[in-house]
Amino acid sequence: MSGTREAIAEAARRLFAERGYDRTTIRAVAEGAGVDQALVVHFFGSKQQLFVSVVELPYEPEAVLPELLGGDTETLGVRVARFLVETLESGQGRSRVTGLVRAAASEPEAARMVRELVTSRIFAPLTEALGVPDAAFRAALIGSQVVGLTMTRYIVGVEPLASIDPEAVVAAIAPTLQRYLLGPLG
Amino acid sequence: MSGTREAIAEAARRLFAERGYDRTTIRAVAEGAGVDQALVVHFFGSKQQLFVSVVELPYEPEAVLPELLGGDTETLGVRVARFLVETLESGQGRSRVTGLVRAAASEPEAARMVRELVTSRIFAPLTEALGVPDAAFRAALIGSQVVGLTMTRYIVGVEPLASIDPEAVVAAIAPTLQRYLLGPLG
Repeated sequence: MSGTREAIAEAARRLFAERGYDRTTIRAVAEGAGVDQALVVHFFGSKQQLFVSVVELPYEPEAVLPELLGGDTETLGVRVARFLVETLESGQGRSRVTGLVRAAASEPEAARMVRELVTSRIFAPLTEALGVPDAAFRAALIGSQVVGLTMTRYIVGVEPLASIDPEAVVAAIAPTLQRYLLGPLG
Repeated sequence: MSGTREAIAEAARRLFAERGYDRTTIRAVAEGAGVDQALVVHFFGSKQQLFVSVVELPYEPEAVLPELLGGDTETLGVRVARFLVETLESGQGRSRVTGLVRAAASEPEAARMVRELVTSRIFAPLTEALGVPDAAFRAALIGSQVVGLTMTRYIVGVEPLASIDPEAVVAAIAPTLQRYLLGPLG
């Protein structure tokens, strides 16, 4: 039975990532998973509850902080950039993050989840741990670059950013993240 | 009669910006403008044609390039950041750009318009005029920060970025744009 639940979650994740929140229906998810609609509702409830369940990150963001903070602060931007790009390049991570960002454009619950990731689950805990001034503003600026990268590279498909090697993306955005984390804000 | 056309365009622009593409209907636009649905169709055609008409920028992006390129290259990032933030802070610009970015998350035609703005109408002509290597990649990176700023500050509402003074936003993102325009990409 947990195989069925996972098949529904997989179909939902794929559809939310590909079509966005508004164009994904319980019916399409059921068809995608080869099950009856009633089973989707049984396992996940409403479309919004299904969405919240399946776009949760495949790890606890809080758990990666010690690893990111563990090395040299001068290369923190590179570590954060690499961690984010690796998440977005993995099948598990990409469908969840693109599904979430795509939905955040129109669905208040998804927008709330994005705000929460930036302001209390990943970026603000990171900047707060660094003891820098303007920690909350810095976290939001990091969020702006990461949300923008997700939109342009993975959702809108702006070339050549959409097809360039992941390491080139890491190298290009790392100095931006480094300054938002620890540098002067102007 | 052009008053009616403009009233429809205004209502459509506001609804696309507030609700997104999928949740905006011809019927709601007609109600918002206080006219019959048939009149909306008469003036603008389909919902997609209406969308394309009303989210066009209030100026020709091509026309601002000479002004941006006119000064010192060391302060180009500041000029581009200020120009973009001023566009987003103006009523005219904000509803068009947020409407476009919001829709680009789910609507292929809006995604195409965003790609076109980055790769042929604003950012690529700017980086090409500078004669820098990797001009197209640089343009896409600028697009990633600008789309991300639009999403986080104006659509998703990530605090404190959402309510901070526009000049603080210009100061914070200008060095990012300066490096994407002219600096080392890593």
